Amino acid sequence: MSFLDNLRAIVGDTHVWAGADAAPYLTDWRERYSGRAQAVVGPGSTDEVAAVVRLCAAAGVPIVPQGGNTGLCGGATPDDSGRAIVLSLRRMNRIRAVDPRNDSMDVEAGCALQAVQEAAREAGRLFPLSLGSEGSCTIGGNLATNAGGTQVLRYGTMRELALGLEVVTASGDIWRGLRGLRKDNTGYDLRDLFIGSEGTLGIITAATLKLYPRPAATCTALVALTSIDAAVALLSLARRGFGASLTAFELMAGDCLAAVVRTFPEQRLPFDAGAATLPWHVLLELSDSESEAHARDRLETVLGEAVASDGVRDVAIASSVAQSRALWHLRESIPLAEKAAGKAVKHDISIPVSHMADFVRDTNEALQQAFPGVRHVIFGHLGDGNLHYNVAPGAGWSEASLLARQDAIFELVHTHVSRAGGSISAEHGVGQLKREALVRFKDPVELAMMHTLKRALDPHGIMNPGKVLIAHP
Amino acid sequence: MSFLDNLRAIVGDTHVWAGADAAPYLTDWRERYSGRAQAVVGPGSTDEVAAVVRLCAAAGVPIVPQGGNTGLCGGATPDDSGRAIVLSLRRMNRIRAVDPRNDSMDVEAGCALQAVQEAAREAGRLFPLSLGSEGSCTIGGNLATNAGGTQVLRYGTMRELALGLEVVTASGDIWRGLRGLRKDNTGYDLRDLFIGSEGTLGIITAATLKLYPRPAATCTALVALTSIDAAVALLSLARRGFGASLTAFELMAGDCLAAVVRTFPEQRLPFDAGAATLPWHVLLELSDSESEAHARDRLETVLGEAVASDGVRDVAIASSVAQSRALWHLRESIPLAEKAAGKAVKHDISIPVSHMADFVRDTNEALQQAFPGVRHVIFGHLGDGNLHYNVAPGAGWSEASLLARQDAIFELVHTHVSRAGGSISAEHGVGQLKREALVRFKDPVELAMMHTLKRALDPHGIMNPGKVLIAHP
Repeated sequence: MSFLDNLRAIVGDTHVWAGADAAPYLTDWRERYSGRAQAVVGPGSTDEVAAVVRLCAAAGVPIVPQGGNTGLCGGATPDDSGRAIVLSLRRMNRIRAVDPRNDSMDVEAGCALQAVQEAAREAGRLFPLSLGSEGSCTIGGNLATNAGGTQVLRYGTMRELALGLEVVTASGDIWRGLRGLRKDNTGYDLRDLFIGSEGTLGIITAATLKLYPRPAATCTALVALTSIDAAVALLSLARRGFGASLTAFELMAGDCLAAVVRTFPEQRLPFDAGAATLPWHVLLELSDSESEAHARDRLETVLGEAVASDGVRDVAIASSVAQSRALWHLRESIPLAEKAAGKAVKHDISIPVSHMADFVRDTNEALQQAFPGVRHVIFGHLGDGNLHYNVAPGAGWSEASLLARQDAIFELVHTHVSRAGGSISAEHGVGQLKREALVRFKDPVELAMMHTLKRALDPHGIMNPGKVLIAHP
Repeated sequence: MSFLDNLRAIVGDTHVWAGADAAPYLTDWRERYSGRAQAVVGPGSTDEVAAVVRLCAAAGVPIVPQGGNTGLCGGATPDDSGRAIVLSLRRMNRIRAVDPRNDSMDVEAGCALQAVQEAAREAGRLFPLSLGSEGSCTIGGNLATNAGGTQVLRYGTMRELALGLEVVTASGDIWRGLRGLRKDNTGYDLRDLFIGSEGTLGIITAATLKLYPRPAATCTALVALTSIDAAVALLSLARRGFGASLTAFELMAGDCLAAVVRTFPEQRLPFDAGAATLPWHVLLELSDSESEAHARDRLETVLGEAVASDGVRDVAIASSVAQSRALWHLRESIPLAEKAAGKAVKHDISIPVSHMADFVRDTNEALQQAFPGVRHVIFGHLGDGNLHYNVAPGAGWSEASLLARQDAIFELVHTHVSRAGGSISAEHGVGQLKREALVRFKDPVELAMMHTLKRALDPHGIMNPGKVLIAHP
């Protein structure tokens, strides 16, 4: 039997796709990466995944695992050699078990994030991970990239939300590591090794996830500020004043909000023209275990204190769920408004919060010196030290002339990130996009250990080769 | 030069100890394990640690890293071959940097936990890890064993409290991974691989730790319950009602509290005789970002609801800091009261909370059948599903006759833990104590991967050999 016949024998004829059926799996959704594959395979169970891996291991065929194909770094797209198979986890989309009393649930890798959120809600619980792509991204992809999003400040990244994993190793063994335990010190932390490894060490087929009580109420506020230093000071004040009730602290440059209002005229800022045009805004969200009235009261008390401090000019506290949604909608519309304005050079970076203001000032200045006239599009999860620091065509630039300088812009920004003790990939991962930058900016001892682990756990190099790490000499 | 001369050349004559000077490092503090060593070495810097490791790697000399020597599983005690050196990190006890605006601090491995808590306090912040041995245990040991304690419910174990690490690898390279970042998705999670590896993969020399705002107030309450099921139900209610303000949820069997009151007559329970003698008690702690009055009000509201429910008989809410301390003191005195009563067979286990009540019932019953008359000493961090499930001599047993059956008791309890989907080491680690049990109860694929990682990162087997893993055939 041919290799493809063997694949069909494992997963069934109708779950091995080629030609037009395979095409959607071979290009990433931003259409930045495209590749080829022998086939796209859709196993329906962990045993089938293991059998496919054993077959590929024997034949030396590389495997590119894929979830919802919503990644931003090309981590789930095959190279153009055509040697690999794409292994889609989407058919494995069962909620295996929900255990509300243990605040945990077992789900398969192919579950859409939104389906997981909904299953938690039906059990009277919260699964807090929240991302723009939650309707189509999968839990497996969220785990493979250690996804972040808007609730990390309180609940952590995907890493903190996973209690256990089920993994098919590079040799096709099944590690049955689904565990609903908050504490387990019986040896090396394999769970966190697979989480964030972008499919290069094995294939995550299922996970035990943490659930939380649903807050009694959430309430949001928008704050207009004169400087980023004031935003950093407000974060300290908010962390002290709200404790763990503070579930989001999002920074938005005034320009970003101006673009939203320009692009979507039905949206508006809850400020007069003076405050609305200030250079920085912060969206705060409080999740309260008491009541909406208590949440609003806390926002008024703590932000009332803030208004007295330097640099905080205006505060708008949502007085209804609809108003809270409208504030979030402003924040969520930034990427769309920016997309409408054309392509940009994007950076997903983190910086120690104490260095944030200096970093933004210095990097903006250096960019203007090197690339005069470019536009800074800055927003992100300041509470986590995570900015989406994007560079867009401004006066004197076209989209094409900017993208032609993309690598030089990357280099300048990442050099500043590195100097400030930051990370060149805060929440999106490495994939193909940043594998060269990793060589340039990662501690060499750390990089060498990563190669050692890759060789140890995937000695034949069949697990998503060329992602995260460039093949070792 | 001899090996010892070379050691002296690296760390200085006065920091290589033998004979009586070395003795305290060769026995664990519970005096369960004792070993021999060529020398005890106390390097004063990361560079010295690296030089010592390179020397040992070249000479094939095993290294046993040691912090405060307060571990409970013999992980920091050498074997009796006399081939190893003990590498004490205690001289490396500097707070390198405190960054309150980033809520982080860089500390060396040899810092005592209490010194770290105090440095955080001086900066107006909280470092939440809290353990019985905090006066003498070190951050390096806390990291090596992924220490837990009483605040895990809210703040997580040591793993969740570390942002970055500095590590000397088994080849004597220095990984400079101190980073004050909440988000960093640039490759494999080496940090969490070293955390909890008990010195078997490398030597943690420093860490960047997370800090938190200090709560405005903490307030505690004691609840008397008729059953463990009622305690589990109360945990759900408390998680929903208090959200992240709930910073401790400790379960104590009535017998344990009776032993405390008997052993330390100055202590008493804040209940009448009926409630004081109930089989289970729960200590709750609330950390509030508003005020003590608000914390007490919340305790009254939510626990008031609880009193109406089945199995909750009485609630005592501390009305002062002194009363809060007195309630904590009851909890903290349990190990001392038990120690005064003689040696016990101890288990540090975790169980999914939803299976907790059945586990305790079934295991108690099975123990009585197999070892009639033994006493169950049960207390622990129910909020984390973590019990200290100890078995003490009861009617018809002497300490000696009980300890003679220790292995059989381990086996019975661990078998029940395993069936309930639990862990045989929740927060103390493996060390020498549980390395055989690990072989028996760990998923074989997981255990094989642990050996693979050990061989990859410590190919010559010099890093704390014989701990966690039994040397591979």
